[in-house]
Amino acid sequence: MIEVHHLNASRSRRITWLLEELGLPYEVVCYQRDPVTNLAPPELKAIHPLGKAPVLRDRGQVLIESGAIVDYLLRRYGAGRFIPVPESVDYDRYVQLLHYAEGSAMLPLLLKLYVGRLGAAGMPLHPRIESEIQNHLGWLDSELAGRAYFVGSELTGADVQLSFVAQIAVRFGGREAFANLTAFVDRIEARPAYQRVVARSGA
Amino acid sequence: MIEVHHLNASRSRRITWLLEELGLPYEVVCYQRDPVTNLAPPELKAIHPLGKAPVLRDRGQVLIESGAIVDYLLRRYGAGRFIPVPESVDYDRYVQLLHYAEGSAMLPLLLKLYVGRLGAAGMPLHPRIESEIQNHLGWLDSELAGRAYFVGSELTGADVQLSFVAQIAVRFGGREAFANLTAFVDRIEARPAYQRVVARSGA
Repeated sequence: MIEVHHLNASRSRRITWLLEELGLPYEVVCYQRDPVTNLAPPELKAIHPLGKAPVLRDRGQVLIESGAIVDYLLRRYGAGRFIPVPESVDYDRYVQLLHYAEGSAMLPLLLKLYVGRLGAAGMPLHPRIESEIQNHLGWLDSELAGRAYFVGSELTGADVQLSFVAQIAVRFGGREAFANLTAFVDRIEARPAYQRVVARSGA
Repeated sequence: MIEVHHLNASRSRRITWLLEELGLPYEVVCYQRDPVTNLAPPELKAIHPLGKAPVLRDRGQVLIESGAIVDYLLRRYGAGRFIPVPESVDYDRYVQLLHYAEGSAMLPLLLKLYVGRLGAAGMPLHPRIESEIQNHLGWLDSELAGRAYFVGSELTGADVQLSFVAQIAVRFGGREAFANLTAFVDRIEARPAYQRVVARSGA
């Protein structure tokens, strides 16, 4: 069976949500962060030497990287669902957004998290970080103008991959700041598959 | 003709190198960072609202994200070169590494760059950042044990995408610290296509 190695307070929910959308059976193996350091526990290194989550184990393969795992599940099990037709312009857009989520959009959000730990000592970096967060979240919001989902009218893996950034945007800027992202988050969180993950793992 | 919008001292070289490997004609549109702020110039926003480089313009499409651009060029123009056969385990590995470069490996290197600007005030974050850099570069080095390239014996887009991290590793740790990454960097930089990019744009 497909195994999802999951760390609490991490980005693993995207994978379990997609597995629910696909209706695939899977098993979740849970890990807890160290309550003092907030770091992932060393046990995660037993499944993959980098010690990160999520990790997918399936058919003897061990895969890391959320974007690659989303793409793997759709290629292997999607039967054409949630992925544009290959060689279409929409497919190029899907791949681009799949990379963009962790390759660019998350960077200023993670910088804010890390630099925030320095307290006042990190202040000189804040204006640049805030400006980059606005740049990325503003662009994502504008990309949803006139679209229900990031590629078009139907859910794709790109939405699953971008959901984490969108949820942070709504928490970060409030429901008013990014109206399209807010509507998108409401839309995905209302999906029955998403609701099943919440019921299974807690909000 | 394919246009590569290129910013000085950035990660755009991967794209021109791949275009040289594919033997495709292309045009480079150059932008210069602001010499005081080191930021990208506002003119980049005319080609893409995020104002980042590299940007590819081809057949009316404007594409961002190095990993997505590499994959696009190989799907569209590769004719099977530099990309594993779809539905193979090597293809899954190729996609995973394409995402890993910017989705994970670059994060601690960029954190080091940003937090370094704080000088002594950033010191509390250094041990964690250095430990994460060692974690990622050490894993990448181990993945090259017994392999000429990251997927196998032939160059793929994953090598192009990971080349920037590998080059930083060699500069960061010295040629002794990561022997496999050093050999890999020597191997790619000796390729005629890479040499042509250097001759065209400077070392």
